[in-house]
Amino acid sequence: MVKNNIKNACLVVIGNEILTGRTQDKNINHIAKELFKVGILLNYVCVIPDIQKTIVKEIRRLKKDFDYVITTGGIGPTHDDITAESISFAVKREYKLHQGAFKELIKYYKKIKSELTDARKKMAYMPSGSKLIKNKVSGAPGFNIENIYVFAGIPSIVEAMMREFVKSIKNKNKFYSSSITTKLFESKIANILAIAEKNFTDVSIGSYPIFDGKPRGVEIVISSLANKKNAQKAKKFIQTEINNII
Amino acid sequence: MVKNNIKNACLVVIGNEILTGRTQDKNINHIAKELFKVGILLNYVCVIPDIQKTIVKEIRRLKKDFDYVITTGGIGPTHDDITAESISFAVKREYKLHQGAFKELIKYYKKIKSELTDARKKMAYMPSGSKLIKNKVSGAPGFNIENIYVFAGIPSIVEAMMREFVKSIKNKNKFYSSSITTKLFESKIANILAIAEKNFTDVSIGSYPIFDGKPRGVEIVISSLANKKNAQKAKKFIQTEINNII
Repeated sequence: MVKNNIKNACLVVIGNEILTGRTQDKNINHIAKELFKVGILLNYVCVIPDIQKTIVKEIRRLKKDFDYVITTGGIGPTHDDITAESISFAVKREYKLHQGAFKELIKYYKKIKSELTDARKKMAYMPSGSKLIKNKVSGAPGFNIENIYVFAGIPSIVEAMMREFVKSIKNKNKFYSSSITTKLFESKIANILAIAEKNFTDVSIGSYPIFDGKPRGVEIVISSLANKKNAQKAKKFIQTEINNII
Repeated sequence: MVKNNIKNACLVVIGNEILTGRTQDKNINHIAKELFKVGILLNYVCVIPDIQKTIVKEIRRLKKDFDYVITTGGIGPTHDDITAESISFAVKREYKLHQGAFKELIKYYKKIKSELTDARKKMAYMPSGSKLIKNKVSGAPGFNIENIYVFAGIPSIVEAMMREFVKSIKNKNKFYSSSITTKLFESKIANILAIAEKNFTDVSIGSYPIFDGKPRGVEIVISSLANKKNAQKAKKFIQTEINNII
């Protein structure tokens, strides 16, 4: 879905540990920020359990609707790491040993003087035809097949893989984003924001209450990818109107 | 979808601020933990933008598949707070002033000696026939219509609303969950876990690497809702097998 050359992305977080509350996810926020920096719209995130049928269904549904589908989690060495096999199934490609990934693992485990067991070797299995997303942190690479980018779940490894992903994006855009903080309550400025939203097309205006037991004011975020000029005009309009009622 | 009397839930996080990375979500983890405590399976989470068409589509899709659909975000006083109106549309009910909610707002703003503006009054609009989910923190109630529970986005208010939700659940279950921590690497115990997973049905076995630059070991989480006895047997089996290889 290309619109003004703007690409969109979705993120699929795979892991029971997020759904049971055992683990607080940290990857959504990091990936969201990094995508925002290079002007890719993150339009959808879902968190799903480690169940092959669910993974296959979600991947097939989302890969049609988004330019980039990023997944996190489930590519380690144990029985509950079923992401690579599930994605092979979803894209109807053979789940097989990737020679390049296998070499990476041999190199890594030699370096840390540890054994490359069969369980670890499993981390080199992925859909036939995948490109590797290398990572120096744990040695085990993620992979890219079609428009799907498969990352690990551990935040430091996700950060390394996200750097590789960003490097691979050729046409980077830039969002214009700026904010106004006011002590006025949301309800006081609701009307101003509604008018600004109507008058400035291609501009997104968000209002976020500052709240610490009591309302303390609002942060207004004005952003645009397609039209920086309009976003600047919108900001000026909102600031002037707020000054008029203070 | 009732199975052994176990109910399932999904969570819809509504808010551009999560998708742009501006805000780190804190509600997913809190709601996941609270649902786990009362034995409701959180099976799906999604994060979607403040766009009416998207909200309506997701709510209609998910309310058929889950016993409980919880939403967070988008019920404040400004133009980008469109959750209540979107949900009215999704369930085909009139979006109208709820007299009980209106009374709550009058009471709250009298108490904090602030004006009940038109923008604030908007927070009493919701689908016809809604039950209120009261909250003492901000005065503005969430609501329940059909199997949909609509919460605010601010974490302290979500916590208050989640307490009301939990109170309303009549038949609370309890998950059995226990864990084993070992310094062995995932790859060393992969085989043991695979056998345990096969032999103990109704038991979920998760393995989570402990990682701080280097792998430091694994936490194995054994849990079950339907069969506590089997979960205890699985834990004993895994512990014995691990002791055998140390």
